Amino acid sequence: MRFSIEGVAGIPEVVEGSDLAALIADAIDAAGAPLEHGDILVVTSKVVSKAEGRSVRADDREQAITDETVRVVATRENPGGATTRIVENRLGIIGAAAGVDASNAPEGTVLLLPLDPDASARALAAGIRSRTGADVGVIVSDTLGRPWREGQTDIAIGAAGVHVFDDLRGQADAAGKPLAVTMPCVADELAGAAELVKGKAAGVPVAIVRGLGRFVGDLDLPGARSIVRPADRDMFRQGADEAYEEGYRAGFEEAQVEDSSPS
Amino acid sequence: MRFSIEGVAGIPEVVEGSDLAALIADAIDAAGAPLEHGDILVVTSKVVSKAEGRSVRADDREQAITDETVRVVATRENPGGATTRIVENRLGIIGAAAGVDASNAPEGTVLLLPLDPDASARALAAGIRSRTGADVGVIVSDTLGRPWREGQTDIAIGAAGVHVFDDLRGQADAAGKPLAVTMPCVADELAGAAELVKGKAAGVPVAIVRGLGRFVGDLDLPGARSIVRPADRDMFRQGADEAYEEGYRAGFEEAQVEDSSPS
Repeated sequence: MRFSIEGVAGIPEVVEGSDLAALIADAIDAAGAPLEHGDILVVTSKVVSKAEGRSVRADDREQAITDETVRVVATRENPGGATTRIVENRLGIIGAAAGVDASNAPEGTVLLLPLDPDASARALAAGIRSRTGADVGVIVSDTLGRPWREGQTDIAIGAAGVHVFDDLRGQADAAGKPLAVTMPCVADELAGAAELVKGKAAGVPVAIVRGLGRFVGDLDLPGARSIVRPADRDMFRQGADEAYEEGYRAGFEEAQVEDSSPS
Repeated sequence: MRFSIEGVAGIPEVVEGSDLAALIADAIDAAGAPLEHGDILVVTSKVVSKAEGRSVRADDREQAITDETVRVVATRENPGGATTRIVENRLGIIGAAAGVDASNAPEGTVLLLPLDPDASARALAAGIRSRTGADVGVIVSDTLGRPWREGQTDIAIGAAGVHVFDDLRGQADAAGKPLAVTMPCVADELAGAAELVKGKAAGVPVAIVRGLGRFVGDLDLPGARSIVRPADRDMFRQGADEAYEEGYRAGFEEAQVEDSSPS
């Protein structure tokens, strides 16, 4: 069992309206290693956002974060005075600043996440499949922090033509005992692996994963949206400080009500 | 930029006292593709635990979880009546059941996580370096769920001879703007990538990552312990329900104190 991941060099600067499928397919063609059935392309969300024109003026950054926010999950004042907002965005993704980011954005602008990264992935996969004849999968990745652990990893915010989970439910280990781990998140693991060749500063927004064709399938497979756990089933749906404060107010009010009611 | 990941076949069943470095090096030797400078081995924690004799009788599972637990982070009653305990273990790692797991454990037993996975990784890396002459890195991986997202990914619980972060602090993007993402967690991304070839049911506990030698270094580099964010700096150090309840009690008591104090 073996696979490889390779960065795709030579993709030109992406601008609003760029035909990403064409740019990617052409760059791969020029590199002389044509796409094959079962290849998986991991595409940095930044270039998808650029092609879709998802940018606003840098001055409007705070407003853009607010607009992208469905729910504030946690906030923290930083030593410098700025506030970090951890929020859930339209896509159900929880992260700092709703994914609104200035790095690798055109001068004077910030980029928002793609409007519907699963749809973007599907359009890209369909475009590349029809151009090349190779049944490839596409993952759209973004870089996010996470609870409990320092640093960031790339995860899948969009996917098409790829099984986002390796569904092992009902399977057994070598000795016949049921597996405790039943749903490895293939799409997140692939996004993270691809980060290792794309880098942040190198201008390599796409990587090809070769050798994991068993995870490639129809374009209508569930996308990365299916990875998002709904807040009402999540034990960490809210920051600990925020939950404590909400509880404190409720407890305080409840005690006052009890005190003032006739006994 | 390109790397590959390959599962190491032919590692025999690991038992207490097994010389893991020898078993791994011999299996790689037999496969005919000798280790090279800059290779990174990702080793499933299960085989490290087995070699270290970190097993207890299955009947003692609940007690073992309690013993491994430093702090209960969140609990939830499942529909069947069983309780899921999300806990911080001795290593600072937060996960279900403190990593105590029956799958792939010898019949009638459960396996605990290695006592000090960074030390285990260091011993393994030193053993393999001295046997093969190749300066390799070692990551010890485990499979864990995470907040906000369904499914599980493999992460690094031990590391030696590997830079666990790609430290980009102070670097700029292609246009010279400071990068927002500054510490990709290489070790977690590698652990996740290796899961894709090791699988859960396949009995392939080790993978070789080849082509990322730039992340390999001295055996005394900081280990995976440096990835753990201390609870007091973590916005999600406690489950939302648990934090709410704690706040509620505090608020309730505070209101009663205020009410009974002379005005």
